[in-house]
Amino acid sequence: MGGQPKGSNAERELIHMFWQIEGWVACRVAGSGRMPYPSPDVIAGNKQKKLAIECKTTAGDYQYLTKEEVAELIQFSQRFDAEPWIGMKFTREGWFFIKPENLTETNKNFTISRDEIKQKGIEFVKILLNVS
Amino acid sequence: MGGQPKGSNAERELIHMFWQIEGWVACRVAGSGRMPYPSPDVIAGNKQKKLAIECKTTAGDYQYLTKEEVAELIQFSQRFDAEPWIGMKFTREGWFFIKPENLTETNKNFTISRDEIKQKGIEFVKILLNVS
Repeated sequence: MGGQPKGSNAERELIHMFWQIEGWVACRVAGSGRMPYPSPDVIAGNKQKKLAIECKTTAGDYQYLTKEEVAELIQFSQRFDAEPWIGMKFTREGWFFIKPENLTETNKNFTISRDEIKQKGIEFVKILLNVS
Repeated sequence: MGGQPKGSNAERELIHMFWQIEGWVACRVAGSGRMPYPSPDVIAGNKQKKLAIECKTTAGDYQYLTKEEVAELIQFSQRFDAEPWIGMKFTREGWFFIKPENLTETNKNFTISRDEIKQKGIEFVKILLNVS
């Protein structure tokens, strides 16, 4: 979720990346905390394809998402007919993207490690293509 | 544009209206002022249809949009394959929606009066249908 400065900066970086691609747009979603509805951090798209992206950034070795975060990302994406993605930025690694179904589910939440994301995650340019 | 409290409240009201409709989602776009890219105030949609909405609210009798605001709404909508709409709320009138091409263009900007919007504008439920 956004809110924290570091998270917002990462979201803005991602927005810039999309706008550098011909035909794509992207925008940050406002204050999800103030509205009772599910929403992703970033919405991006072109004429053919829409992406709903939850952004996570960490300096640590593990990234966590609550089950509610993941459920809400999926719910929003289904209604909006967008592809759900989690965009992750581990410090010094750049961005990787992963589908909700490829996260590791534990009793309490979803988690992914710095090593896992490099194996299972895909790079930015690939989420622009029809790989899903 | 968002930013001002009154505008933000109107946007939130509109978001609630969309979420009350089966199958629809809506969200506010964050801080357009901090990013150099065109973006609407609100994005809404269901599986079939996406709307990009610029929101305007006033207690006065006229509503103004700059040519840049209108051009950017159209630019975003074309790339995202969304319908561009201006959502207007004149105090004591409720919401009306109008397409950019139905605004009155003056030398300096686009304008619409309280009387005009009642004639040319359409009601909320109608923008959910395929009327465009």
